[in-house]
Amino acid sequence: MSSILGQVFRISTWGESHGGGVGVVIDGCPPRLPLSVDDIQTDLDRRRPGQSDITTPRKEQDRCEILSGVFQGLTLGSPISIMVRNEDARPESYTEMAEKYRPSHADYCYDAKYGIRNWQGGGRSSARETIGRVAAASVAKKVLAALAPGCEAVAWVKSIYNLSANVDPSTITQAQVESNIVRTGDPAAVEPMIELIKKIRSEGNSVGGVIECVIRNCPPGLGVPVFDKLDAELAKAMLSLPATKAFEIGSGFAGTLLTGLEHNDPMRMKDGRVRSTKNDSGGIQGGISNGEDIVFRVAFKPTATVMREQDTVSSAHEDTTLTGRGRHDACVLPRAVPIVEAMALLVITDHLLRQRAQCG
Amino acid sequence: MSSILGQVFRISTWGESHGGGVGVVIDGCPPRLPLSVDDIQTDLDRRRPGQSDITTPRKEQDRCEILSGVFQGLTLGSPISIMVRNEDARPESYTEMAEKYRPSHADYCYDAKYGIRNWQGGGRSSARETIGRVAAASVAKKVLAALAPGCEAVAWVKSIYNLSANVDPSTITQAQVESNIVRTGDPAAVEPMIELIKKIRSEGNSVGGVIECVIRNCPPGLGVPVFDKLDAELAKAMLSLPATKAFEIGSGFAGTLLTGLEHNDPMRMKDGRVRSTKNDSGGIQGGISNGEDIVFRVAFKPTATVMREQDTVSSAHEDTTLTGRGRHDACVLPRAVPIVEAMALLVITDHLLRQRAQCG
Amino acid sequence: MSSILGQVFRISTWGESHGGGVGVVIDGCPPRLPLSVDDIQTDLDRRRPGQSDITTPRKEQDRCEILSGVFQGLTLGSPISIMVRNEDARPESYTEMAEKYRPSHADYCYDAKYGIRNWQGGGRSSARETIGRVAAASVAKKVLAALAPGCEAVAWVKSIYNLSANVDPSTITQAQVESNIVRTGDPAAVEPMIELIKKIRSEGNSVGGVIECVIRNCPPGLGVPVFDKLDAELAKAMLSLPATKAFEIGSGFAGTLLTGLEHNDPMRMKDGRVRSTKNDSGGIQGGISNGEDIVFRVAFKPTATVMREQDTVSSAHEDTTLTGRGRHDACVLPRAVPIVEAMALLVITDHLLRQRAQCG
Amino acid sequence: MSSILGQVFRISTWGESHGGGVGVVIDGCPPRLPLSVDDIQTDLDRRRPGQSDITTPRKEQDRCEILSGVFQGLTLGSPISIMVRNEDARPESYTEMAEKYRPSHADYCYDAKYGIRNWQGGGRSSARETIGRVAAASVAKKVLAALAPGCEAVAWVKSIYNLSANVDPSTITQAQVESNIVRTGDPAAVEPMIELIKKIRSEGNSVGGVIECVIRNCPPGLGVPVFDKLDAELAKAMLSLPATKAFEIGSGFAGTLLTGLEHNDPMRMKDGRVRSTKNDSGGIQGGISNGEDIVFRVAFKPTATVMREQDTVSSAHEDTTLTGRGRHDACVLPRAVPIVEAMALLVITDHLLRQRAQCG
Repeated sequence: MSSILGQVFRISTWGESHGGGVGVVIDGCPPRLPLSVDDIQTDLDRRRPGQSDITTPRKEQDRCEILSGVFQGLTLGSPISIMVRNEDARPESYTEMAEKYRPSHADYCYDAKYGIRNWQGGGRSSARETIGRVAAASVAKKVLAALAPGCEAVAWVKSIYNLSANVDPSTITQAQVESNIVRTGDPAAVEPMIELIKKIRSEGNSVGGVIECVIRNCPPGLGVPVFDKLDAELAKAMLSLPATKAFEIGSGFAGTLLTGLEHNDPMRMKDGRVRSTKNDSGGIQGGISNGEDIVFRVAFKPTATVMREQDTVSSAHEDTTLTGRGRHDACVLPRAVPIVEAMALLVITDHLLRQRAQCG
Repeated sequence: MSSILGQVFRISTWGESHGGGVGVVIDGCPPRLPLSVDDIQTDLDRRRPGQSDITTPRKEQDRCEILSGVFQGLTLGSPISIMVRNEDARPESYTEMAEKYRPSHADYCYDAKYGIRNWQGGGRSSARETIGRVAAASVAKKVLAALAPGCEAVAWVKSIYNLSANVDPSTITQAQVESNIVRTGDPAAVEPMIELIKKIRSEGNSVGGVIECVIRNCPPGLGVPVFDKLDAELAKAMLSLPATKAFEIGSGFAGTLLTGLEHNDPMRMKDGRVRSTKNDSGGIQGGISNGEDIVFRVAFKPTATVMREQDTVSSAHEDTTLTGRGRHDACVLPRAVPIVEAMALLVITDHLLRQRAQCG
Repeated sequence: MSSILGQVFRISTWGESHGGGVGVVIDGCPPRLPLSVDDIQTDLDRRRPGQSDITTPRKEQDRCEILSGVFQGLTLGSPISIMVRNEDARPESYTEMAEKYRPSHADYCYDAKYGIRNWQGGGRSSARETIGRVAAASVAKKVLAALAPGCEAVAWVKSIYNLSANVDPSTITQAQVESNIVRTGDPAAVEPMIELIKKIRSEGNSVGGVIECVIRNCPPGLGVPVFDKLDAELAKAMLSLPATKAFEIGSGFAGTLLTGLEHNDPMRMKDGRVRSTKNDSGGIQGGISNGEDIVFRVAFKPTATVMREQDTVSSAHEDTTLTGRGRHDACVLPRAVPIVEAMALLVITDHLLRQRAQCG
Repeated sequence: MSSILGQVFRISTWGESHGGGVGVVIDGCPPRLPLSVDDIQTDLDRRRPGQSDITTPRKEQDRCEILSGVFQGLTLGSPISIMVRNEDARPESYTEMAEKYRPSHADYCYDAKYGIRNWQGGGRSSARETIGRVAAASVAKKVLAALAPGCEAVAWVKSIYNLSANVDPSTITQAQVESNIVRTGDPAAVEPMIELIKKIRSEGNSVGGVIECVIRNCPPGLGVPVFDKLDAELAKAMLSLPATKAFEIGSGFAGTLLTGLEHNDPMRMKDGRVRSTKNDSGGIQGGISNGEDIVFRVAFKPTATVMREQDTVSSAHEDTTLTGRGRHDACVLPRAVPIVEAMALLVITDHLLRQRAQCG
């Protein structure tokens, strides 16, 4: 009821941050696509903690295992089950969390909803849950490679706190993004952003920012007219990520400061294709892709766990205070970049197969 | 595949702007709720064209009919089918649209997707499709009245083009919003906004803006941890509306300019309830409502139809120009206010019943 | 939640026997298929009451209207809404039903479930609800004609009470079935069956029987390995029809009286295709079609409404008696034949598009 | 798309008979229910191979592991992931299967559908897949114990080949069924059935039969009027099991030999409850439970794998022969009894939560 995404390429994630592990079941994947553990591991390594000195120093190997759906290196068409074991937890680190709600975390909400929660870490709301999404997106890439060659998603850090990067969505490459640990596409922004994160971390504080993403070479015609509009599905996919607060596509909020004559994207034939001469629509019109670059931005709030005392309430419903502990990212954005790409790929792949179902 | 929203309170809209009519089928509605045509008509009248001199002068009566699911004034529990007939169209108004794609409309996208489109008006992408959503939300209100008394959604125009309204989400009432034709909650903003719309219209141009919405008295515990997060579902619902480009909840994009210590919402007991002492979370944490006001904003781009010549492309894939005709809203926001409320109510109602299914 | 069938070719029916009307919304239909009211009306006429002197003498015109999804005679790809108005009811005929539960009808069950029921006729459990299914199947035929030419479903009355027809599933044609009002394929059985129905009706009693159906030229590879097996979906579709009590495919119950060596279908190449030399599997193995004829049988219980006094219970929960009134079929099978075909076509069409989604 | 069952209590199975393992993800389970590995293991042991000398001598330990969704012995409300590792396979046993299609298995159908198959054993069509279903049903039992105490499913072998058991559905207990290795409820039938199975096995042949099942104390009001009728859902669930060919509820096919006056179940008040004085309806009317025992029967064809030479076709599409090898059940019915119960429990549990969602 809660943990399933997609209509045809359908993924179902499971797992808490503490417990046996986390994983995903991918249903509806086309058969005969090459798929290996290494394909998936490469993507998981990009989101792993401990990959640089601005991410959490927690070391998690996150080695994945393909349990089903692949035979002799090819997808079978049956459900692909992928699992990553949790490593030994130190539950004593979390004793205080059993008794107190962390501010701006979901602790109280889980209790209000379920009357129970796994207080060893974030449980289901932990960023560890996104392992399953990234693994599923590795499979989605294989589908796209076969059915929509050239279709790719590239995301980057657009801003951290008050520092912005200057990046051209039409030319930025994943290699450029990966060339720096902050995963921005603007060389001039790298050092200031790193310094900012280190400074904030040293203060026991945290920051957020904006990730921008472009989907290139998306075939025109993906998405549907109502409810499951392609941009609506992207919005949901992005807001389903931990710590996100906003989504905009194309001109976004700034588009409200343009008139219709300024905002409308004129059309012209180019190289035999119907094209827009600019792209304030962000590649989607009426919920359906038009073949231009799909460009969107996602806001991530500052990490909720801070190393300072805050007012809160206990599970017994008494006022108290709580000071964050443990090893957390002072800024999640560098690690969130591959996750944003993953969600974009999952949405596109599902709609590609939906389009094939209805329209051939 | 494309036109269904919700898991338990499930709505399915149908209809193009030109053809027999538009409507909605509501499946999963609880039984024994009072429901009349008048209940629905009242809500439909708020979104109807021609209701004031800043909306399109088109007169559409939009009289609804309940075809099933209600017996002796009470819901039966079976599907509720509601229909509004289309009135006589003047297809000659649309001849040019058969041959040319309107810039920043979905015309080309429909052709790319389906290889066919109903060029008499916007077809499925017409704002007329939202009639079914508003009618369904009238039914949702009945569910909320029975199961979550006091839960309500109030939306208002937050900005139009460069004019902003100053409104307090915690106190604004629907009566205040309805007291002016622009549907903003700030008396000082009413006249300037009306003047702006009239001026823009006189220029054959158009403007967009931002609608803000608050959901009050939402029970804590609605939403789910992954994918179908309450804010993710709201984001999708809003981005599924025509002309929307962005969604933000709570602090939104501006929240990225705060540090974690500033952004986190401290918790305190108040009147025996767990409360936040401020609400940058916007009433949802980890995808689940926490009982605070749910506050979000939606950006609407300027109306795509403008009365001026624009570059475009023909269905035969040749460069051409097109000048908008007909009677269109130069600014859709006043009429979009009840539609934003409708989508909010539909999401909350579905999650209320989902919560009852799983957690009692 | 309750009234939706299919994953890609998804139909949603609505309507009670008394009220505004009945109808269906078809979502996910491929675009650019020719579709007219006449196509649908032809199929609806086969299930209509009053078509012969062994069916109920009720006259219902059941004229359908296509409200959306079709433009200039072609499907648009958007939801197709089809409606049939109910004709004037005589609610006085039903007063007694408001106060007493009809034995072996769903009256009590509806009250137990919903705490309310439309006692004017069968409400949602009326056979009138199947109008929407038959109309949707008319659309499904168009999909099959385009994507799986030659694929067809032919059903016939296999038995009524203790009278059996001798019919060869591999050669029977719809024309042969339609040539007699009892809709059996065995000329020798026609008169005895008609006489039996008339005799039973004259006694105020009723009978049931078995309908057999063959699906020919179904492409191999439709269906899925688990849960949504093609035969499982057919079983559900058939048991979702009013008055059905049993389903069997291929050898069915009788297959339990064979040994494995007898039951297994040997395989041989024939005309370059993989074939079975006999067909106890009934055209489906492991939930997936193998290209042979899909043959199944459905049992219909005798009509629950009889013109004789029966023990029952009142809505006020007191023992009482009830004598059936009105104009009902003493045997529903002749009219159920096109409905069985309709359900078969809906299942096949959905799986055809599902197969295209996943496997191309 | 293919491997998900249920709307609220939703299960998703994964895994082939050879590969990493098999498992299930259960989504939508109510929180705070006690659940342990032992609960599940007890049920898995009933379906395990090698449990008696009339089942396959293959020894599979089938030890399950709960990977998520349970904390300190209670369900969390989040997805419950359960896995059973596959044990070392002997792929050399299956070499011939790589090249030849086994008659009346799904080998050819998988190739026709996917263009690939895991020929090491039955892949996804293996009975091993049902491990996930049985594990999920263990969880379903916890839901029923909490929300519908006394609701239980008991199944037994009704017939094997031409030997029938005489069992009273209203009084049979699971203890009686479990007291004999053939899992029939008729002491007089036990020895003849065992002898038959041994004789057939010694001949390298196989037999099928009928399993009957009763669901007791199902609350009235479960199920829905259309499509997802409770009996339709049970039919689908049963036909989704390997080797099933038929389903009937209540009077079933034999009910067609009764007249309406004979078949109708008279109603009478008893102990303050609305009751039927007999139960040809089988506990469901109009798709909704009426509170009487739900009684149904399922036909299983003889095991397709026989130890004798049969005509078949190779993957290269040439005529050939194949002789079965390995250790297979000559009769699957004793092991299928707990699986039939499991499917019944899954359907009832999902509809119990669906009813709670819509009707409270």
